[in-house]
Amino acid sequence: MNQQIVTAAILAIGDELLSGRTKDKNIGHLADMLLLAGIDLKEVRIVADDEEAIVEALNALRTKYDYVFTSGGIGPTHDDVTADAVSKAFGVACAHDEKAMTLLADMYKRRELEFTEARQRMARMPVGATHIPNPVSTAPGFVIGNVYVMAGVPQVFQAMVDAVIPTLRTGTPVLSVAVSCPYGEGDIGTPLAAIQKAHPETSIGSYPRYVGQKFSTEIVVRGRSQAVIEAAAADVEAMIDGIRRERAVGENHSAEA
Amino acid sequence: MNQQIVTAAILAIGDELLSGRTKDKNIGHLADMLLLAGIDLKEVRIVADDEEAIVEALNALRTKYDYVFTSGGIGPTHDDVTADAVSKAFGVACAHDEKAMTLLADMYKRRELEFTEARQRMARMPVGATHIPNPVSTAPGFVIGNVYVMAGVPQVFQAMVDAVIPTLRTGTPVLSVAVSCPYGEGDIGTPLAAIQKAHPETSIGSYPRYVGQKFSTEIVVRGRSQAVIEAAAADVEAMIDGIRRERAVGENHSAEA
Repeated sequence: MNQQIVTAAILAIGDELLSGRTKDKNIGHLADMLLLAGIDLKEVRIVADDEEAIVEALNALRTKYDYVFTSGGIGPTHDDVTADAVSKAFGVACAHDEKAMTLLADMYKRRELEFTEARQRMARMPVGATHIPNPVSTAPGFVIGNVYVMAGVPQVFQAMVDAVIPTLRTGTPVLSVAVSCPYGEGDIGTPLAAIQKAHPETSIGSYPRYVGQKFSTEIVVRGRSQAVIEAAAADVEAMIDGIRRERAVGENHSAEA
Repeated sequence: MNQQIVTAAILAIGDELLSGRTKDKNIGHLADMLLLAGIDLKEVRIVADDEEAIVEALNALRTKYDYVFTSGGIGPTHDDVTADAVSKAFGVACAHDEKAMTLLADMYKRRELEFTEARQRMARMPVGATHIPNPVSTAPGFVIGNVYVMAGVPQVFQAMVDAVIPTLRTGTPVLSVAVSCPYGEGDIGTPLAAIQKAHPETSIGSYPRYVGQKFSTEIVVRGRSQAVIEAAAADVEAMIDGIRRERAVGENHSAEA
């Protein structure tokens, strides 16, 4: 099967995400959307509203992955430095975009609000960038190269993601099947490693849960074809049945003893 | 005032965090705890259970910040590769730690469970590392250099954080005061930038909210002394009052017209 792999990273920007004040909602949302689009999210970074930190992270990520999506720092206040940082990363000027100025001027005129200097800041973007529409509150996000710059407010971020996703090159979707396992990772670690080895086209993850002072595991088999993941999942089920039978025999022996 | 600045980064490790399957709980928890300890969280990264990705992130972060805290990937299964990756990042061997082997062997003996090869994996750590105790499920985390390697299961992670925090060098805590502002960032952007400029010892963040098709803002003033943040917050309050008075005058004029 000819598989297309498309990779992505998310760069979430904002002091408030690092101070514990705001629990990020955008990363989880975009992770879900990328999964549906068959785009592999490989890395997430969170940095402060700090120009140098943003430039450094952006240049590392945009050279490494097919797409980079940022959230936050494109509002009208002094701590919104994302447009400047993205411009700097690409080595281009950051300027008031004419089309964005018109969009915003019209909107504020309709609402009978002054188009302040602060509000005009929202029209600034790297020269050569194209818009990501913002149906919620007008001020556009922007795309430059493989970098998609979006707002931090979750309603606006999500609307921008909805606009962006259909424009992306998508990959062969990753399919997954989850098997609930009543045993802890210590019980299944060795046989599960053997199953992973026998099914190299899958990626088998095990996620421990700890409830009522007892470990259990969710085993997730991922792969890019249904046949491949079903074959591995069948082996996982057989492994669990095997442990169950073994323990039942053990208990019978105990009862006899 | 003699201020101590201590910086930190978090590296969360796990395929499940990137697939959208698991919404991370550890980053927010540790961010809160570091804030209380006066340690500045400067960066967060999330990477997959991938040795190369972990090594690269770890070497970038540990040379840049005073402390690095990792979560995840130290369990008994084949996808737990954090101990190997940390060893590789530090250029030391990854081996079964004698003290950890004894701890685990005793625990499984008490519970009448076999100390399987998979369970023995949890005793592996970089040679020279010291333990982070695990009161929940025994298998220790570990410290090497300025890197603190902890479990991904939230109950275990939190217990390990509780053990680690009192051992860290703490900084002058960052104090903050939040001012609720009924106006959007476009209204306050310009005067708020002037307030930030007049109070360079503070960091003033503005966080837009969008409720009922109307923007409002939470303004957060941060700083390392109460006097400093109170002076800036007073100017923020005065700015909000100023806008309120200005608008009231405007409305009176309209009523007259």
